[in-house]
Amino acid sequence: MGTSGTSPWNEAAIEALVAPFLRDLAPPTSLSVLQYDLNAGVPDRASLPATEIAEAAARALRDDPAGALTYGGNQGYEPLRAWIAERHCTEGLTIGSDSVTLCSGSAHALDNIAAAFLGPGDAAIVGAPTYPGAIRAFRARGATLIDVPQDAAGLRPDALLEALAAWEGPAPKLLYLIPTYDNPSGSTMPLARREELLGIAGEHGLLIVEDDAYAGLDLDGPPPPSLFSLARGQGVLYVGTASKTVATGLRLGWTVAAPEAIRQLVFARLDNGASPFVHRTVLEYLRGGGYHAHVERLRAIYRERRDAAVETAREAFGDLVRFHPPAGGFYLWLHLGEGLDAVSFAREAAERGVAVTPGPLYFANEGGERNVRVAWPALPPEQLRDAIARLGEAASAAAS
Amino acid sequence: MGTSGTSPWNEAAIEALVAPFLRDLAPPTSLSVLQYDLNAGVPDRASLPATEIAEAAARALRDDPAGALTYGGNQGYEPLRAWIAERHCTEGLTIGSDSVTLCSGSAHALDNIAAAFLGPGDAAIVGAPTYPGAIRAFRARGATLIDVPQDAAGLRPDALLEALAAWEGPAPKLLYLIPTYDNPSGSTMPLARREELLGIAGEHGLLIVEDDAYAGLDLDGPPPPSLFSLARGQGVLYVGTASKTVATGLRLGWTVAAPEAIRQLVFARLDNGASPFVHRTVLEYLRGGGYHAHVERLRAIYRERRDAAVETAREAFGDLVRFHPPAGGFYLWLHLGEGLDAVSFAREAAERGVAVTPGPLYFANEGGERNVRVAWPALPPEQLRDAIARLGEAASAAAS
Repeated sequence: MGTSGTSPWNEAAIEALVAPFLRDLAPPTSLSVLQYDLNAGVPDRASLPATEIAEAAARALRDDPAGALTYGGNQGYEPLRAWIAERHCTEGLTIGSDSVTLCSGSAHALDNIAAAFLGPGDAAIVGAPTYPGAIRAFRARGATLIDVPQDAAGLRPDALLEALAAWEGPAPKLLYLIPTYDNPSGSTMPLARREELLGIAGEHGLLIVEDDAYAGLDLDGPPPPSLFSLARGQGVLYVGTASKTVATGLRLGWTVAAPEAIRQLVFARLDNGASPFVHRTVLEYLRGGGYHAHVERLRAIYRERRDAAVETAREAFGDLVRFHPPAGGFYLWLHLGEGLDAVSFAREAAERGVAVTPGPLYFANEGGERNVRVAWPALPPEQLRDAIARLGEAASAAAS
Repeated sequence: MGTSGTSPWNEAAIEALVAPFLRDLAPPTSLSVLQYDLNAGVPDRASLPATEIAEAAARALRDDPAGALTYGGNQGYEPLRAWIAERHCTEGLTIGSDSVTLCSGSAHALDNIAAAFLGPGDAAIVGAPTYPGAIRAFRARGATLIDVPQDAAGLRPDALLEALAAWEGPAPKLLYLIPTYDNPSGSTMPLARREELLGIAGEHGLLIVEDDAYAGLDLDGPPPPSLFSLARGQGVLYVGTASKTVATGLRLGWTVAAPEAIRQLVFARLDNGASPFVHRTVLEYLRGGGYHAHVERLRAIYRERRDAAVETAREAFGDLVRFHPPAGGFYLWLHLGEGLDAVSFAREAAERGVAVTPGPLYFANEGGERNVRVAWPALPPEQLRDAIARLGEAASAAAS
């Protein structure tokens, strides 16, 4: 109740004020309350380097308390930017800290990219399927999304050319993709296709947004070079994150790009920069000496889980469901056979205590009715086998 | 250079892709390299509770490592939301953690509010002058800003009514203000005007955004009740922050509002939530027992500095420059006399090693040519006296 005795502020009044672009968005993803959550892309919890991070935080606060606890600027802590830049230097490419900006997770980096480059009337190209967070970030700025089919090798260049030819609006600005360990499809794009896509993007003035959220979690050896590296840092906004190899709870992501693009991203910031306390803590952790062994340990953990997931899924699904075993990342992307649909499958799975995500969430426009995403990294192998065996039962039940 | 041997990605090509709304924004504020920075609103560095925060971080990571280091959800850590909600409960108002959402600083809370409620064609009302971060956040969503003159008691209700009557576009959605220790004007709105503004906002369906960034730093006793409290939580989005009483480097802010408004803000999040590591660290710190004594200490520090700033400014400026001594917050808002202008004043100040901010930055449309903002909290009294004495010389030089 307001000071006048009656308040006009009921739920409908609030709802009437909601921004138009927000009405087109799917809800953000959330954790499931079911026994087995194969819905969220959450890393293993037991292997989180909590003790090392606590020590790193203490060192950061001891060494420069005022620096760690005072605004650190929109671009982020320079020594951490330099550390990240160094990892992107190759024989043909030398970059420095002015090629990096730090964000609150890679989701926020995508929001920052959208703020800098997209507005109403603009178009961006995404895969079909693609990461729902990118769909939300781009739509929230009023952009139109053009989606391009993917196959087992990622976004299809022939379909991209077709979509560009068919598009009648203003020239699309961005091409968003996850070429390595794609979310949700699990695919990794071969070198030849990477080069082909870079060529098309250059010809059409498309700025590539390369989301490499699963970098480092290589289960079958190193992937092809990044698009950023192949393009010598030109025309590619490379998005990285500490979420998968250090911890999601730090909310540390970054964009690596040519300095002139970074300047636009820094200009577009509206949050007075991310946390220098977090930046310094992470750099102390990275320099602490245990990071590489930690990533090796994660690879072993996830390799075992991936193998358990793939083996159990083959047995459990038989001919009802197809999938390509991923070489990294967090997901099995299921293609449901004739007579099966994603919603029925997910409902049958939920009845058996297993949360999975129906495919349509991963499509900007249409599709996914016969796809389901299964996130396997959070569960130890024994529980994972149990959960996926139940998905096999769910598939059989949904098919009958 | 791209794979094709020539890159089309020069600076002009990047610039051509920039989002239209971005082109209307002033640059974000940054720290000065001059000897005395009276430009940025940065708290005292020596009093930052670094040791206590390090201990709090260690406890948070020890007690629940997986919780502190894994995605914490879009709304933020529930026990910290409950702690904040409890501080907003009064005799006539009981709220819980569902009335609070946590952001990366209050600047990000404003961005979140803009994402939820503003789009192209929408209008928002701000003070003239007002906080430049709010101008940027609202404009970045394509909103039009209507500005309403302030006097020594804050935003003028009569001028608000005039502006509403004169406005010919769609009904404005938001009314943004800092009723207590305003940035930049330093004013605190008396109770009667708060009630008058709430009445006008209710009649016009204006959702109030009450920015209370300087809450707690009371130098002359408690201010009037918040608009949120006077409105019994209806029709007001109250924005708070840990920046001024704990540390800016944590990047922790929040919005307190009716649960139905909070749900819209949570839905509009694009960053997968803020850091649960930071949330748990701050709550451990707040519960650690030293917080209230710390705020008392800050009040004493800032009271001494405010008094030094006011006293020196009176001596240094004489009749050339007027200002109202603030009862809290971080700023002296200078009204330059005849023959003085903000740009010349700031230039003369910079030549004497003192950074200040010319007034026009604080006006959404026009104005501020004879205003200057002076942020006094970061310097100890002796340096502050020296800096402000130099501003007196700058005023004399600019006037001649």
